[in-house]
Amino acid sequence: MNTLASLPLSSWETIRWRAPALEILDQRELPHTLQYIRCLNAIEVAEAIRHMAIRGAPAIGCAAAFGVALEAIRLQEQPNFFNLLELGFTHLAKSRPTAVNLFWALKQMRDCLDSHTLLPPFEITAALLKKAQDLLASDLRLNHCLGDHGATLLKTGARVLTHCNAGALATAGHGTALGVIRSAVNAGKKISVYADETRPWLQGARLTSWELQQSAIPVTLIVDSAAGYLMSLGQIDAVIVGADRISANADVANKIGTYTVAVLARRHGIPFYVAAPLSTIDLTIASGREIPIEQRNGEELTGYGGIRWAPEGINLLNPAFDVTPAELVSALITERGVIHSPNEKKLRAFVMKPD
Amino acid sequence: MNTLASLPLSSWETIRWRAPALEILDQRELPHTLQYIRCLNAIEVAEAIRHMAIRGAPAIGCAAAFGVALEAIRLQEQPNFFNLLELGFTHLAKSRPTAVNLFWALKQMRDCLDSHTLLPPFEITAALLKKAQDLLASDLRLNHCLGDHGATLLKTGARVLTHCNAGALATAGHGTALGVIRSAVNAGKKISVYADETRPWLQGARLTSWELQQSAIPVTLIVDSAAGYLMSLGQIDAVIVGADRISANADVANKIGTYTVAVLARRHGIPFYVAAPLSTIDLTIASGREIPIEQRNGEELTGYGGIRWAPEGINLLNPAFDVTPAELVSALITERGVIHSPNEKKLRAFVMKPD
Repeated sequence: MNTLASLPLSSWETIRWRAPALEILDQRELPHTLQYIRCLNAIEVAEAIRHMAIRGAPAIGCAAAFGVALEAIRLQEQPNFFNLLELGFTHLAKSRPTAVNLFWALKQMRDCLDSHTLLPPFEITAALLKKAQDLLASDLRLNHCLGDHGATLLKTGARVLTHCNAGALATAGHGTALGVIRSAVNAGKKISVYADETRPWLQGARLTSWELQQSAIPVTLIVDSAAGYLMSLGQIDAVIVGADRISANADVANKIGTYTVAVLARRHGIPFYVAAPLSTIDLTIASGREIPIEQRNGEELTGYGGIRWAPEGINLLNPAFDVTPAELVSALITERGVIHSPNEKKLRAFVMKPD
Repeated sequence: MNTLASLPLSSWETIRWRAPALEILDQRELPHTLQYIRCLNAIEVAEAIRHMAIRGAPAIGCAAAFGVALEAIRLQEQPNFFNLLELGFTHLAKSRPTAVNLFWALKQMRDCLDSHTLLPPFEITAALLKKAQDLLASDLRLNHCLGDHGATLLKTGARVLTHCNAGALATAGHGTALGVIRSAVNAGKKISVYADETRPWLQGARLTSWELQQSAIPVTLIVDSAAGYLMSLGQIDAVIVGADRISANADVANKIGTYTVAVLARRHGIPFYVAAPLSTIDLTIASGREIPIEQRNGEELTGYGGIRWAPEGINLLNPAFDVTPAELVSALITERGVIHSPNEKKLRAFVMKPD
């Protein structure tokens, strides 16, 4: 894994195929530096995911798909191609535990592999690369569909709170939560955004505020704990967030703090929307209690950029996600449409229905 | 205003009189450096308050009282002693707007001045200095009383969440919210604390976790937005916070994010306690809506220690406090006792009753 020279802050893509490498925009360096990491195999992609060079459930899924394709390219002339490729799947699956899109994308790649096993490895490899490219292109398309569906929920003039980053940087482009906002703006609506800074990783301060600023969508940065105060003043009209996994009963795992925002929104009668592709829905998990919650290194809490502000030797607890129960979700916005007051029955019917 | 050399991290006082100066522990340098600022006049004290070298409602009150005394010492041989001293009051009153203890302490000093106006300035000055010293000693005593009353509310084994710093560092010593915890520990109860890091100024990460660590009280640091998640897991038994101003109807202004914690506590049936001296109660203000909320410089949100993480040119909103309505307060803990489910009638009766 090596890095390209720093680029001017102009056009960018979260993830892109530049044969023979996958180029990943290194989000740890944003907003100051636009720098891509070149990955040549599954381990490099898994490390980029684990260390959050790339993050955001759909983007992680796309990266993992390319991780499989890269591994196939690397191994296509090896006699034990299938066994070694299996190790690549394993590495990628272990990179992060909560976002289900990762496992969904790996499943897509496995299905592709399984349907081509009788072909020679170089043809399988070509099929896997094409599948990864299709998944990336598909994610961008579906975000536009999702955004257009969600945009109908926003009135012009709406002041929208978002938490973490569910934007172009979390997806192949356009974004889920921010995709809804972009689509509303594209439809001529005047939307302004409050971005929670989203401690500890500061996705709101570093990513959401940056990408909205780049798109000339008005955005104001606040600390996470100011959201309730703004709601109490009547300054928030809607909340839109993304999701990392949605259980069969429509509980939503998303960035730590999402549950808090949902509780506050309910108290203030403010709609709380979750924008996520259908691939985020995990019907194999009954409720949010069963969703594995990643516990990250507590050192993320102790400082920033080499500067420490917490005392040495302090106990630290750093859950990366929390679970918002379905009863607090006003609507789930997907590429196929909006599910109001989602529950298990509605979710299953919606997922199962033909496109 | 000059600074003393850095001291080892051993014993410390938030604020202390070392004639002819007031020494203020510079909380901007904690937890890494124990360094006192020496103030010789009202302007230096006002600046120390404004720039948060000292913070915490009761501590600000004590500092302001000494600010008046220092100004009297400086001016006692001036022919226009009274007029110039008036400017000192004005400077101090403008230092920070939300915590009422500042104005309460200045009122105490004015009453002292008014009852000595017929004496020569050097005698007035002596009376003012004695009054400031009395207020400091009184704050320490009352925190012990407050702590003992509050400790009765905590069972052994309790896991207590606190927000911001309402500890020894926010008072003359012992603390209000943390005073309750200290008193419970002193009474032999086993208490552990979750400290919200308290963005943007990180009072939890830098001050609360440090002072509890110094006192060997178990403390775990979390991001502000993890509190709701811990509550949902049943890992919080009580919340205790301080207050900057309490209106006549028992609404509570306190550090931004306090309201959010109160809303979460209510949802989870967890008691939400406010620990504050009677001087924090402002009966001249009917409800929390009328409490002036300080808006601080947005740059506090953009980075730390010279490192910037937010994009340049981003809009910033940085309210320093919010208001928790009385209905969310399980009990108000004061030096005179506990007021359960506080409201205007109970509060007025309590404040008015003789000691």
